[in-house]
Amino acid sequence: MRIAILLYDRMTALDAIGPYEVLAQVPGHEVSFVGLERGVVRTDTRALGLSVDRSLDEVTASDLVIVPGGPGDRAMRETPRVLEWLRRIHETTTWTTSVCTGALILGAAGLLRGKRATTHWAFHDELRGYGASPSAERVVFDGKLVTAAGVSAGIDMALALLGRIAGDDAARTIQLAIEYDPAPPFDAGSPAKAPPAVVSALRAVFGSLAARPS
Amino acid sequence: MRIAILLYDRMTALDAIGPYEVLAQVPGHEVSFVGLERGVVRTDTRALGLSVDRSLDEVTASDLVIVPGGPGDRAMRETPRVLEWLRRIHETTTWTTSVCTGALILGAAGLLRGKRATTHWAFHDELRGYGASPSAERVVFDGKLVTAAGVSAGIDMALALLGRIAGDDAARTIQLAIEYDPAPPFDAGSPAKAPPAVVSALRAVFGSLAARPS
Repeated sequence: MRIAILLYDRMTALDAIGPYEVLAQVPGHEVSFVGLERGVVRTDTRALGLSVDRSLDEVTASDLVIVPGGPGDRAMRETPRVLEWLRRIHETTTWTTSVCTGALILGAAGLLRGKRATTHWAFHDELRGYGASPSAERVVFDGKLVTAAGVSAGIDMALALLGRIAGDDAARTIQLAIEYDPAPPFDAGSPAKAPPAVVSALRAVFGSLAARPS
Repeated sequence: MRIAILLYDRMTALDAIGPYEVLAQVPGHEVSFVGLERGVVRTDTRALGLSVDRSLDEVTASDLVIVPGGPGDRAMRETPRVLEWLRRIHETTTWTTSVCTGALILGAAGLLRGKRATTHWAFHDELRGYGASPSAERVVFDGKLVTAAGVSAGIDMALALLGRIAGDDAARTIQLAIEYDPAPPFDAGSPAKAPPAVVSALRAVFGSLAARPS
């Protein structure tokens, strides 16, 4: 199976690396990291560089595509080359997927119109703006479109996908290999569970992000 | 707080990127990715390149150091420059930490003698070989040494650390920002939970990895 993972400037690293870790360890899976140009992109914190090994023009078909999110999503939503590439590659995929605000890039490409989908909890309204019906589920399957909630949800999405692609025991094998038996020391991973002051502080941060020019 | 994350050839990406994502988003945290030489290292699958921005010689002190694991750990355990760097930097840290078989590198540097520690579930015997007492906990604190179980456990470790460094609400804020409300679609993340056939198949794979020359 050919897997293409989009990388871009100011993306959130874990959005891409979570699903990568689940899917790339499977024999027979060929993962390519794809971007506007070959070279290194810097993530949202600027502290990490990820290598783009193939340019968009070099990848014309893929069985699975993964679009991560992050503050750089806005620039991607306004870059016709990226949106055209997504529309073209989508015609060749078995699965077209996103993590976090990667869904907004799929939305800008017109791929989520009339679809059930999800994104980071703070960006459901923006998702609706692209004609999607936001869902509160952590991972949403609608036909071949699969969208995950914020950042870490990409790990759960990839395990669910792997179950469908290679069978439940293949997914269980990877889950055990990466010892994914999560035990967060706090219980604040969703707006319903976090203290209200934490939720409103973050909403303010994400609200200003959404309003900020790319 | 200065945070140094070791990168090396044939490491497992999520071991490093999980804790990075939790710790690097905090204002005032300065993260450096450090390795033998500046440039790009390739991870265990060879499909991903991560940028080493500073060489070991350029980083002489750090408040927190994170050592990831992966099949490349064996070469690191046999590289005196890495072990000497770890011993030197350990004298400057508030926290010296590892994820997965990164603990074996700390062990080879002599830092785990007489300590309670953990590593990936398939490598507890190797950990004991370095004079540590392996623990079944997912994250083990022993003084300033903090070790996490396999791969994905680094996320839980980083949240626990962040609670101690910046307070529980800072950790809850990051947990909510990365929507870490895990919902694995299978329950196979530890040898006690996975089907016995899956456990024994993986033990065979990891056993041959452990025996293989670096």
